[in-house]
Amino acid sequence: MRGKPLGPDVDLGVLAKRTPGFTGADIENLVNEAAILAARRNKRAVNMEEFAEAVERVIAGPERRSRLITEKEKRITAYHEAGHALCFAKLEHTDKVDKVSIIARGMYGGYTLALPEEDRNNLSKSELEDELAATLGGRAAEAIVFSEITTGASQDLRQATQTARDMVMQWGMSEGLGQRTFGKKEELIFLGREIAEQRDYSEEVASQIDREIKTMIDRAYQRAHEVLTTYRTQLDAVANRLIEKETLERIEFDALVGLAPSAA
Amino acid sequence: MRGKPLGPDVDLGVLAKRTPGFTGADIENLVNEAAILAARRNKRAVNMEEFAEAVERVIAGPERRSRLITEKEKRITAYHEAGHALCFAKLEHTDKVDKVSIIARGMYGGYTLALPEEDRNNLSKSELEDELAATLGGRAAEAIVFSEITTGASQDLRQATQTARDMVMQWGMSEGLGQRTFGKKEELIFLGREIAEQRDYSEEVASQIDREIKTMIDRAYQRAHEVLTTYRTQLDAVANRLIEKETLERIEFDALVGLAPSAA
Amino acid sequence: MRGKPLGPDVDLGVLAKRTPGFTGADIENLVNEAAILAARRNKRAVNMEEFAEAVERVIAGPERRSRLITEKEKRITAYHEAGHALCFAKLEHTDKVDKVSIIARGMYGGYTLALPEEDRNNLSKSELEDELAATLGGRAAEAIVFSEITTGASQDLRQATQTARDMVMQWGMSEGLGQRTFGKKEELIFLGREIAEQRDYSEEVASQIDREIKTMIDRAYQRAHEVLTTYRTQLDAVANRLIEKETLERIEFDALVGLAPSAA
Amino acid sequence: MRGKPLGPDVDLGVLAKRTPGFTGADIENLVNEAAILAARRNKRAVNMEEFAEAVERVIAGPERRSRLITEKEKRITAYHEAGHALCFAKLEHTDKVDKVSIIARGMYGGYTLALPEEDRNNLSKSELEDELAATLGGRAAEAIVFSEITTGASQDLRQATQTARDMVMQWGMSEGLGQRTFGKKEELIFLGREIAEQRDYSEEVASQIDREIKTMIDRAYQRAHEVLTTYRTQLDAVANRLIEKETLERIEFDALVGLAPSAA
Amino acid sequence: MRGKPLGPDVDLGVLAKRTPGFTGADIENLVNEAAILAARRNKRAVNMEEFAEAVERVIAGPERRSRLITEKEKRITAYHEAGHALCFAKLEHTDKVDKVSIIARGMYGGYTLALPEEDRNNLSKSELEDELAATLGGRAAEAIVFSEITTGASQDLRQATQTARDMVMQWGMSEGLGQRTFGKKEELIFLGREIAEQRDYSEEVASQIDREIKTMIDRAYQRAHEVLTTYRTQLDAVANRLIEKETLERIEFDALVGLAPSAA
Amino acid sequence: MRGKPLGPDVDLGVLAKRTPGFTGADIENLVNEAAILAARRNKRAVNMEEFAEAVERVIAGPERRSRLITEKEKRITAYHEAGHALCFAKLEHTDKVDKVSIIARGMYGGYTLALPEEDRNNLSKSELEDELAATLGGRAAEAIVFSEITTGASQDLRQATQTARDMVMQWGMSEGLGQRTFGKKEELIFLGREIAEQRDYSEEVASQIDREIKTMIDRAYQRAHEVLTTYRTQLDAVANRLIEKETLERIEFDALVGLAPSAA
Repeated sequence: MRGKPLGPDVDLGVLAKRTPGFTGADIENLVNEAAILAARRNKRAVNMEEFAEAVERVIAGPERRSRLITEKEKRITAYHEAGHALCFAKLEHTDKVDKVSIIARGMYGGYTLALPEEDRNNLSKSELEDELAATLGGRAAEAIVFSEITTGASQDLRQATQTARDMVMQWGMSEGLGQRTFGKKEELIFLGREIAEQRDYSEEVASQIDREIKTMIDRAYQRAHEVLTTYRTQLDAVANRLIEKETLERIEFDALVGLAPSAA
Repeated sequence: MRGKPLGPDVDLGVLAKRTPGFTGADIENLVNEAAILAARRNKRAVNMEEFAEAVERVIAGPERRSRLITEKEKRITAYHEAGHALCFAKLEHTDKVDKVSIIARGMYGGYTLALPEEDRNNLSKSELEDELAATLGGRAAEAIVFSEITTGASQDLRQATQTARDMVMQWGMSEGLGQRTFGKKEELIFLGREIAEQRDYSEEVASQIDREIKTMIDRAYQRAHEVLTTYRTQLDAVANRLIEKETLERIEFDALVGLAPSAA
Repeated sequence: MRGKPLGPDVDLGVLAKRTPGFTGADIENLVNEAAILAARRNKRAVNMEEFAEAVERVIAGPERRSRLITEKEKRITAYHEAGHALCFAKLEHTDKVDKVSIIARGMYGGYTLALPEEDRNNLSKSELEDELAATLGGRAAEAIVFSEITTGASQDLRQATQTARDMVMQWGMSEGLGQRTFGKKEELIFLGREIAEQRDYSEEVASQIDREIKTMIDRAYQRAHEVLTTYRTQLDAVANRLIEKETLERIEFDALVGLAPSAA
Repeated sequence: MRGKPLGPDVDLGVLAKRTPGFTGADIENLVNEAAILAARRNKRAVNMEEFAEAVERVIAGPERRSRLITEKEKRITAYHEAGHALCFAKLEHTDKVDKVSIIARGMYGGYTLALPEEDRNNLSKSELEDELAATLGGRAAEAIVFSEITTGASQDLRQATQTARDMVMQWGMSEGLGQRTFGKKEELIFLGREIAEQRDYSEEVASQIDREIKTMIDRAYQRAHEVLTTYRTQLDAVANRLIEKETLERIEFDALVGLAPSAA
Repeated sequence: MRGKPLGPDVDLGVLAKRTPGFTGADIENLVNEAAILAARRNKRAVNMEEFAEAVERVIAGPERRSRLITEKEKRITAYHEAGHALCFAKLEHTDKVDKVSIIARGMYGGYTLALPEEDRNNLSKSELEDELAATLGGRAAEAIVFSEITTGASQDLRQATQTARDMVMQWGMSEGLGQRTFGKKEELIFLGREIAEQRDYSEEVASQIDREIKTMIDRAYQRAHEVLTTYRTQLDAVANRLIEKETLERIEFDALVGLAPSAA
Repeated sequence: MRGKPLGPDVDLGVLAKRTPGFTGADIENLVNEAAILAARRNKRAVNMEEFAEAVERVIAGPERRSRLITEKEKRITAYHEAGHALCFAKLEHTDKVDKVSIIARGMYGGYTLALPEEDRNNLSKSELEDELAATLGGRAAEAIVFSEITTGASQDLRQATQTARDMVMQWGMSEGLGQRTFGKKEELIFLGREIAEQRDYSEEVASQIDREIKTMIDRAYQRAHEVLTTYRTQLDAVANRLIEKETLERIEFDALVGLAPSAA
């Protein structure tokens, strides 16, 4: 931690649990952010408060409270995040929701932080299917509540597509394509980064891959839709509380989603 | 604003509303343009007049009054711009028309300025569909009035294609292709700009994408056509006033389009 | 005009009309060529004569009187140029023929200069269709008169293909493909020039584009064929006068094509 | 061995047998690793102990005992490695299992070391088919025992795909494609590495290749599945002993798999 | 001619007729070769003899008398060249045969020099079709006489393919594809040469192009076959005389082919 | 031969016959190798012995006697080389076998040296078809004798594919594709080597090419199979003698294959 005194409340175990999948660079970045925040606040030591905020900064970028949004956009964002969060809460193989917020951070209008109970190296097909549904939960909520969809879900769709692609092409999890991988990454050394994925399969297989991805995404979206329709009462409750308070911590969120399911 | 005195009539709120989506560079550019105009006019302060003109310069390039155009071209341009403007005015989810002009600016023969009521981060499918129709309103007007189409709509077609592509490929807004994204942008670092979109989908999907885009564009063109046929009286009124005055401000435009619709 | 005295007969209005679509570089080139010609001829001022010749040099390269051609080639070239010129003269939406010549210039065996009455910014579909027919008029004439086709039309075919492609792909003028654009130009900066057109459409659409281009080209060739068959008397008259005089100016050309049409 | 004294127990014959397929660079690497380990341990000579550990380091990377894994992950890894090992043990044309371990090394959660009895230059189709089955034995074990599959098999799938591809495309071992090769490797000299495989065959053949690969992989997976179902008792025994001891040497492994097969 | 004295027998008119299509660089090369030959022979002036030999050197490379060939190869080459020459002689729209030789030059085993009567700028479809047949006449002769084909015709096939491609793709001379061009040459400036032909047409058109090329080549080969079967007596006569004398000049060749045609 | 004294037994005629197709660089390499061998052996002159060995070194790399191979591998290699050699001996249009060996050289386990009777410039279709069969004779022998195929034939398959491709694509020797060539080699100058073959034909033709190649390869393999089945007695004789002696010179080989054919 390079000479920066830690406050007595800093619990490295809690911190580690909040930073699953962090690389060495991420952690260095995190410590720097926390130290900068402490310096700005004229604190002698870096306390848990600074670390907690730094975690969010590293994951989603700094808060953008200055951004003005309309009441309508606020409502859409609230339902969008509530949609993600409720799917995480109600599906079986998902991480626990740690925080939901509609305070804009970086390029996101809001964010839902779901953390695994323990550090994992591998993910099972069931976990990936539930994650896929939760990723699409934001758009499903918008469609259910406003009968309208927006460009705001673009990043979610991109992430869901990448997950479904990897399930089919890297992890052998499709029904029809079997226990093999597809495609070959090429990294151009003189550019210092990946530039192209070489297609080492036929056009016929490319069509099958697209069909498998579509099946996975359709099923995941349908499951998100079912969860949110079943728990519409909780969806409204979480969204409304978000509009009111902007951020929900785990305890309050858990209390809200513990309500009884809607009648079918 | 770097040492340039602002005139007492400058209203930054009004200015901000006229510059939605402006980047920092755009705003710097805008301020420079306004200051240059004030200097040319030997004014001590930069007034609202200079800012208003600078906004148009930044969006569409400087006026080109020197360009000689024939009466026929003037008439075509007037109907083209009236076509855009009327679609903005009569469709439900569109921005309000702020100004219509047939004074050539940059590479455009004329321009229609439609501004959102408030700054938005996301766009809904309904808003995009109406925008698409308004974009094609210029060519629709030419086809209705002159039974002829020209190369002048080329930039509109390009923009409409890009919007429809993004709706299908980035925003999951097509009927048949579902909640995923298609394609992957590659940016070649040593060139400093995007150079290619990598196709990460099958030929079968490529055909579906083209069909979805065609459906969206056809529907949008048909809607523009219907609006302009329904409000033919207003179309003629706006075009004729443009031929006469070259530029219409919001108030006069609104008065003209408030006339009763044509008989079907 | 940089210090070069202009002769009293130089009419800049006439000059401007002869140089539609010229860029700044073209005009600079033109003035230099005229000054060089005047210098070679030991003239004190640059007269209209030098400008007129310079225009042709800039458009088609310098005359190549030294090139020896056979009588047969001369006859083919004469009918080829007469074919272009007659289509320009008899089709409705075309420019007026200013000059027809079978004196070789640059890489062309002859040339037909057709100039618009006035400067235009946009072209209508009807104008493009007639231009297409006139571009193919040279080969049509060869086929009608000699029942033989030659490699001499290669540049015409290339130009016709480019025009038809743009009508379908950039200007939305095909029957079936609708109000959109196709393809994306990529310019490689480090090469300083366009190098590739990125295909952003499916193979299915590529086939449709080829079919639309073929339809346009076939129709245009057929129309050129009809014009030249209908006005065969004039075709022979223009070709024969070209063989005799090598160059026809507008007045003489107009007199020849004013003859009555051939019996069907 | 460059001045590093070898301990009296170092048997180069045993060492050679453990390093089949090693290149000169691998061997140099191996010797360095052993010397480093000896230095760390303040030994005057490099003993067999250091060489044995160095072999594993070179093949799978250094041990990562510090990595914390859950009991569940440990159990999955144990069955995964037991699956590989049992296939090697029970299939006819395979190498003998030398060691099985669930201690994480490099990017692997565990590893199974199977060594050929003697150095080989060529591999037969039967040997490759059994190797393919053993490679897929890890995932098959997970599917049988947990009715779940995970991302942990990704590297196995990649390796199996590459083997099946080579059998079809480089070694003429498919049923339908015959005694030829497909594809051409291109190595870009200025990049110092292979960058692309040039496709020198038709799309029709590409589909056939994919079908042949699928057939091979499906058959191999099915064979692994059969072996593990037949010898379920042994699978459980090996996995349980691994959970308990983390590493099994050849003797203990052989004793466990010598048990009678399960009833069908 | 840069200071090299020309002999009194040098006829520049005859020389020009023997060098159709020569570029400036070719002519400079030619003059240098002739001067070098004169120098080697200790001549004071460059005579027609040196120029004549230099023309052949520039076209086909220097003679390679040192190359040893078997009697069998000599016979094949003789019939191959006789096949080319007889097609030139008997087809209607071809150049006249100036010389036939089976002395190896550069990479060719022999060569047939056919020169146009006069310099031409364009070629007609009929001329190209006959040239195509003559190009394939060498292989046709081998097939007729030896019932065997060899790799020796490779360069002829390449040239015939290029001519047929250009007829279809650049010169609009196919039945079905119409008056347009296909493909776009890209020249990479930093490489100083053409590197790729960009495909600006659909796969469907690519198939049509291949079919048109095949039709043209098949027809041309069949015509060559017919000519050589009809004039088998002359084919034998020319081949036998070539075996005997190695080179035939125009006069002797014309006498041999003037014989009566074979009975059908 | 640059100052190296040649032994009195060196016969340059015999040497030339053993080095068909050698380039200047190959010959320089050959002379150097022979001189080095003579130097190692402390000889004053380079004798025929050194040249003979040098020829083999240049063609297949230096002997690798140190490589240890199992008896089984030795037997496979012996039958593999015997398969090649017997096809050369029994097919009509092939070169004569000069030497067969199972001493590993370079990357080959063994080699069969077949030399043409005389230097040839072109190859006939019949010669190429027999060469193709002989190339596949090694694998055919393995399949017949061991009912198993190995990766050892990989280089043979690659060579057979290249020959069949050239027959179809460069030499016009297929049934269905006619007298043309396919594909265009591109050599990237700044890389100093060929990098890609540009496809200048349609997908439909690509399928036809693959089918023609398959037909040629299948037929060649079948012919090799028939030869080896018919002459099984000789195959066993040659293989057994190779196992015993490792290398067979022409005389001994010829004696062995002169035995009567096996009963069908």
